[in-house]
Amino acid sequence: MNLALINGPNLNLLGTREPEIYGSLTLPQLVARVTEHAATLGFGIESFQSNVEGELVTYIQQARGSSQGIIINPAGYSHTSVAIRDAISAVGLPTIEVHLSNIFAREEFRHHSHVSAVAKGVICGCGVKGYLLAVDALAELLK
Amino acid sequence: MNLALINGPNLNLLGTREPEIYGSLTLPQLVARVTEHAATLGFGIESFQSNVEGELVTYIQQARGSSQGIIINPAGYSHTSVAIRDAISAVGLPTIEVHLSNIFAREEFRHHSHVSAVAKGVICGCGVKGYLLAVDALAELLK
Amino acid sequence: MNLALINGPNLNLLGTREPEIYGSLTLPQLVARVTEHAATLGFGIESFQSNVEGELVTYIQQARGSSQGIIINPAGYSHTSVAIRDAISAVGLPTIEVHLSNIFAREEFRHHSHVSAVAKGVICGCGVKGYLLAVDALAELLK
Amino acid sequence: MNLALINGPNLNLLGTREPEIYGSLTLPQLVARVTEHAATLGFGIESFQSNVEGELVTYIQQARGSSQGIIINPAGYSHTSVAIRDAISAVGLPTIEVHLSNIFAREEFRHHSHVSAVAKGVICGCGVKGYLLAVDALAELLK
Amino acid sequence: MNLALINGPNLNLLGTREPEIYGSLTLPQLVARVTEHAATLGFGIESFQSNVEGELVTYIQQARGSSQGIIINPAGYSHTSVAIRDAISAVGLPTIEVHLSNIFAREEFRHHSHVSAVAKGVICGCGVKGYLLAVDALAELLK
Amino acid sequence: MNLALINGPNLNLLGTREPEIYGSLTLPQLVARVTEHAATLGFGIESFQSNVEGELVTYIQQARGSSQGIIINPAGYSHTSVAIRDAISAVGLPTIEVHLSNIFAREEFRHHSHVSAVAKGVICGCGVKGYLLAVDALAELLK
Amino acid sequence: MNLALINGPNLNLLGTREPEIYGSLTLPQLVARVTEHAATLGFGIESFQSNVEGELVTYIQQARGSSQGIIINPAGYSHTSVAIRDAISAVGLPTIEVHLSNIFAREEFRHHSHVSAVAKGVICGCGVKGYLLAVDALAELLK
Amino acid sequence: MNLALINGPNLNLLGTREPEIYGSLTLPQLVARVTEHAATLGFGIESFQSNVEGELVTYIQQARGSSQGIIINPAGYSHTSVAIRDAISAVGLPTIEVHLSNIFAREEFRHHSHVSAVAKGVICGCGVKGYLLAVDALAELLK
Amino acid sequence: MNLALINGPNLNLLGTREPEIYGSLTLPQLVARVTEHAATLGFGIESFQSNVEGELVTYIQQARGSSQGIIINPAGYSHTSVAIRDAISAVGLPTIEVHLSNIFAREEFRHHSHVSAVAKGVICGCGVKGYLLAVDALAELLK
Amino acid sequence: MNLALINGPNLNLLGTREPEIYGSLTLPQLVARVTEHAATLGFGIESFQSNVEGELVTYIQQARGSSQGIIINPAGYSHTSVAIRDAISAVGLPTIEVHLSNIFAREEFRHHSHVSAVAKGVICGCGVKGYLLAVDALAELLK
Amino acid sequence: MNLALINGPNLNLLGTREPEIYGSLTLPQLVARVTEHAATLGFGIESFQSNVEGELVTYIQQARGSSQGIIINPAGYSHTSVAIRDAISAVGLPTIEVHLSNIFAREEFRHHSHVSAVAKGVICGCGVKGYLLAVDALAELLK
Amino acid sequence: MNLALINGPNLNLLGTREPEIYGSLTLPQLVARVTEHAATLGFGIESFQSNVEGELVTYIQQARGSSQGIIINPAGYSHTSVAIRDAISAVGLPTIEVHLSNIFAREEFRHHSHVSAVAKGVICGCGVKGYLLAVDALAELLK
Repeated sequence: MNLALINGPNLNLLGTREPEIYGSLTLPQLVARVTEHAATLGFGIESFQSNVEGELVTYIQQARGSSQGIIINPAGYSHTSVAIRDAISAVGLPTIEVHLSNIFAREEFRHHSHVSAVAKGVICGCGVKGYLLAVDALAELLK
Repeated sequence: MNLALINGPNLNLLGTREPEIYGSLTLPQLVARVTEHAATLGFGIESFQSNVEGELVTYIQQARGSSQGIIINPAGYSHTSVAIRDAISAVGLPTIEVHLSNIFAREEFRHHSHVSAVAKGVICGCGVKGYLLAVDALAELLK
Repeated sequence: MNLALINGPNLNLLGTREPEIYGSLTLPQLVARVTEHAATLGFGIESFQSNVEGELVTYIQQARGSSQGIIINPAGYSHTSVAIRDAISAVGLPTIEVHLSNIFAREEFRHHSHVSAVAKGVICGCGVKGYLLAVDALAELLK
Repeated sequence: MNLALINGPNLNLLGTREPEIYGSLTLPQLVARVTEHAATLGFGIESFQSNVEGELVTYIQQARGSSQGIIINPAGYSHTSVAIRDAISAVGLPTIEVHLSNIFAREEFRHHSHVSAVAKGVICGCGVKGYLLAVDALAELLK
Repeated sequence: MNLALINGPNLNLLGTREPEIYGSLTLPQLVARVTEHAATLGFGIESFQSNVEGELVTYIQQARGSSQGIIINPAGYSHTSVAIRDAISAVGLPTIEVHLSNIFAREEFRHHSHVSAVAKGVICGCGVKGYLLAVDALAELLK
Repeated sequence: MNLALINGPNLNLLGTREPEIYGSLTLPQLVARVTEHAATLGFGIESFQSNVEGELVTYIQQARGSSQGIIINPAGYSHTSVAIRDAISAVGLPTIEVHLSNIFAREEFRHHSHVSAVAKGVICGCGVKGYLLAVDALAELLK
Repeated sequence: MNLALINGPNLNLLGTREPEIYGSLTLPQLVARVTEHAATLGFGIESFQSNVEGELVTYIQQARGSSQGIIINPAGYSHTSVAIRDAISAVGLPTIEVHLSNIFAREEFRHHSHVSAVAKGVICGCGVKGYLLAVDALAELLK
Repeated sequence: MNLALINGPNLNLLGTREPEIYGSLTLPQLVARVTEHAATLGFGIESFQSNVEGELVTYIQQARGSSQGIIINPAGYSHTSVAIRDAISAVGLPTIEVHLSNIFAREEFRHHSHVSAVAKGVICGCGVKGYLLAVDALAELLK
Repeated sequence: MNLALINGPNLNLLGTREPEIYGSLTLPQLVARVTEHAATLGFGIESFQSNVEGELVTYIQQARGSSQGIIINPAGYSHTSVAIRDAISAVGLPTIEVHLSNIFAREEFRHHSHVSAVAKGVICGCGVKGYLLAVDALAELLK
Repeated sequence: MNLALINGPNLNLLGTREPEIYGSLTLPQLVARVTEHAATLGFGIESFQSNVEGELVTYIQQARGSSQGIIINPAGYSHTSVAIRDAISAVGLPTIEVHLSNIFAREEFRHHSHVSAVAKGVICGCGVKGYLLAVDALAELLK
Repeated sequence: MNLALINGPNLNLLGTREPEIYGSLTLPQLVARVTEHAATLGFGIESFQSNVEGELVTYIQQARGSSQGIIINPAGYSHTSVAIRDAISAVGLPTIEVHLSNIFAREEFRHHSHVSAVAKGVICGCGVKGYLLAVDALAELLK
Repeated sequence: MNLALINGPNLNLLGTREPEIYGSLTLPQLVARVTEHAATLGFGIESFQSNVEGELVTYIQQARGSSQGIIINPAGYSHTSVAIRDAISAVGLPTIEVHLSNIFAREEFRHHSHVSAVAKGVICGCGVKGYLLAVDALAELLK
């Protein structure tokens, strides 16, 4: 059983970008930690990052064939993308939305995410740990 | 004389995604039906689908050289894309916007389309038939 | 099988009023063209025009007995009439809303129609041709 | 002593329209029940229904001469009619506004009624019983 | 040369309704005063009052043949009628909108009139005198 | 069969507080009148008043065991309490919301009640009589 | 008996500024025409123009001693000045607000005037004639 | 080391209220599961539930002395309580906000929580599992 | 003559909570200073603090018997409590609303207080001194 | 040590303008009372009133040299002047904003003051006494 | 050829006010630098600063005679002055609006400028350099 | 030292698209002029154009290594892209936002740019010259 781990725009900069907000772990390190944690629960991780909204849409569509659940941090597209929302809704896989920072404690335009309404759950403000919690949450849902 | 038939994000899933909303025809089948219908009116169809907003922009730009009119279903980008609106406005070809479902009977964020203000006409809620009607409408406009 | 063709306020002025927006065909000529087109698909047309909101409500109610579908251009009442919306909802006939001009390219108060949410489909900006497309759309729906 | 019983657009369809919302009693049956109940309190009922906003305005005006109070279900005009509001305000008779369904549990545009601000009281969601309660309320007011 | 004098809903109650807001002159008396004043400037008056929005629309349409200008007090329909606005726009006659009371000093929903945007001028708060001023204004415009 | 009669903040002041709005009956007198009226219909009354939102929540929860319906005047909490709304929704008893004054004729912040959307019916502006009508409405619902 | 004639910012440019909107009469010519007209009704005119909001406030205050009524075109300050509104309210003289153009047919920010709520009447869109009508309206009010 | 586990209004009904939304576990069972899970990470749990906003405020204040972190499900008070927000802000303990259901997929008034802006993290839509994840998140934060 | 001194939620933490905003005086010290100052003007102080909205409502009600004026800092309930507003309005005692910090220089949701509209005066941003000023203001009002 | 006492538009009319709102003291009397009170605390008063926004700006700028604090009643400019706000912010003197009436109990456009966000404190609704309290507040701040 | 250089309220404080936002150059120094730069392009500079909105209006009007273009920093009046906007529109000279700081990165009320819609261009956030760029931009426009 | 010159969607059409708005220079010609101008100040230009939002994000990220500043015209993405905003914020290079046309004089949805808040400066309405001014501005910033 696999979980798709999908990261949106600018998350390829993790560890180098505004570390006081986003932490000092790089994206590969993050993926490694999530993979390791998922393995303890019997899940493989299919990881993907893109700065292109449409490539995220395409990857979500393809997850239907290869994964049983989705962990997604849509980053900047959270607040503006109906296309990603529609893709998640179309594939029908249980999805957990993750944000490293607490988006509700930041600028007002970050308080609304188009994705949240079609996700099963939302976890934000827990840093990298939030991805691990998302794995746990999906594991619970897929039991 | 050609018409550009442009479909936006997630429409590549047609026939497999939420068929109660979007019907059971696949995108290739839809294109075939539109092509067949257009032929009876003396038009060829140049078909394009992409999940990437910017590729849709580029295709619209290129339609200037190869087509006399545009049929576009911008799907999720309808509600968020100024870039697609600007592209249509820039090429200056008569454009009919099509939506499979009646977007005015769905969530409120789907009620507004950036594209509508620069289209000649809008047809929604008529399912696949709406594309055929769009061909008819363009044929009338191009007479 | 009949279709009700219902036109709202000021459409009796067609052909004489702001022809750059609404075209030069008169209402009787429009009805004749729609009737002729409907006949080719096996439908009769029951035509009605009124400037009075309540008479439109009453005619919609009566369409339940005599028609299998409704083509309505609610004109100025589109934006203000809950009563017409409720009538369409009450009779339960498949309804196509038509606007001669593209209401989304005009003043902002014309962008919202109470009727759209209870119509099957909406066709606007296609001029008189839009009525013919509405006949086609209903024919498809009633197959 | 008479009470005016005034019903707005589409209420002539009562008993046949969306009975899960509006119940199965017809309008004449409803009027009969209200008349019967009013008689036990010494009131006659002057009943009127119209789909035309302006006819409702005119009837309200005339109630000044013949009735001591008004029971009105403005239906779809509740949300859009300043003219009816002004008529009630002009005649100065104590008025109870009635809605069969609970308008506050339906679409947001039904939550506001222009009439409520000039009514003495508002009763909604109590079905046909609401009309009988309105008679009781007026009887109390006119004591 | 004639001017159409058009009064909307509840203005038939003039002189009897809330005289502290609307004054004590009846509608026939008002029409007489306007007619007398217009005569001194060489204009006849075609007067019409209705509580029905659609009848006002129809009368405005017909003014095209018989009058050179329109004086209209749309009363309660000022704030809700796109149909009346469209009728005035369609007939293209110079129009002065009149309100007896100062609508900007009353409830907020009375501050906006759909008609104002298509009128030449707006006169409000001058009581019955406002109608006479409207005659003067039209006389100036039609010189 | 019992009905819960629940009154919110400041209603303990009834009869002494702003009598021109709320009348001169005290709360015990009101409860007595409601009890007497309910008895004629075969219902007992369980009465409760509190100024504390959370105690109202708790009482509503407990009504599930002891009552078949709820009459509630949430007073100042109507406009601000999601907790009371959730409690009513949770216990699932048919509920009539009562307001002594016509809240729609008062300040705008009183026009919206969180409770209305989960109540069966709403009665306002009928003074103390409104409570008696609420008993009648519940009796009808529980038949 | 005197009337104060007060003109706000940029009206000193009359006749030279955007004549298609504001006409070709200069301010001194306008004042002359108003003075002449007022004289026929037995009124003198005290004229004042300033581009400075506070000087307009001061002049309005002083009008209390020298005038029986105010004709004011607050121009650009209409939409932004509470101070002018307060001054008019403080002096308590009957005031007619005049606008040369129809502010309701221009940009949306021109649709609201702080002054209107404290004026007796508002006249707009009647060009220079509007000032003469304002004199007539004040004459009527001061009878 | 202790964590305060604070549950707001109506959560005492857990397991009996709308189980399709909130699940079938009772509150004591939920507390037991959280306590058990926390123990494996070396934390004790101080549990509190109240329907009274002010008692929640008081409990949060007292947590300063006895706990190192807070897990709070403010339920209906999430959307309306500045007092709870201020209490959390005042005590300065790291706080995770938990919601059983996905509040972003429910009514719009549930999309905003006053508490989120002062919480470290927010977890919603993960059911009872969400509380366990909150323990994990706090354990990470307190390392 | 007594004045009621009422403090809302979290003010029991004064001196220990965010001293850079609220100062370092504890609540008992604050009450002592206010009492001492009031005594010089011949007033006794009846002090009350609660975190529970409803207890504040009840205390305000009881102030009617024992006090001639109210000094209230509703803290977090300022922005959300209609019940406290109604209580103040019901008892009819002159009331001064006090805030330690300048609420207009903080988050936008703190800019509106339900209580202000029924208070005689509002004093904010003056720290503990603000309470003493409130005593002075009430002394002036009660002269 | 001096305090600047700055009064905005129309406050020169004090004592003669709407005394039921603003009291019967004239501005010179008010200044005298403030000066007398300030003297008891060791402060001189530099008083200035203008109806001109820009003169108020200039005076505030000059206060930097001559005063240690500012007491300002911006009157009508409170709600519209960014320039005054910027001036206060630029000079950096501690400022108390005073309003004679309770602006929160008046028209909604008076509820917001641009000045409040840069003032130390706000005192309103305390009449002339409010100025004296402002002196006390500044004395406290400047200790 | 001359350019008018117009600076609004508080810009006379340049160099002494909040230097971290506005820099350390004084206004005379700024004018000198602009004059020097303009001279290299063959332009003279007519400089004016005022804190009074109306004086800015008057100066803009007079620029029609003496200058070929306008550089204006309306400062605090940017956000509130229709009068300045109207003056620029009336004189019809090409105008560049300059702001020292980036107004879009400051408080939300600074994001909208009435002047921008009638300016040719807007330059902000470039400090004193922005004025020099404005000279360049006007030189380009006037070629 | 290099500057990144980044152009967004549809700017590849420069010179051929709506020349009355965007001018007749092509994009390569524009880049040549900017490069030439930058060279005089000692800067090289790294130019990039894309219709794809995500490719613009990626290019901005890479500018961190190769450039000292960014000149960006985000075109249609200005109004909709949080991802581009986040990228600029992440790389931390001084950025000047350029628009060929004056976006504040066009449709309202063009008045807001997500990018402005993280740019150092904004230059709009100066046509191609605006890019040269942006080079000057960056040169000043990088001194």
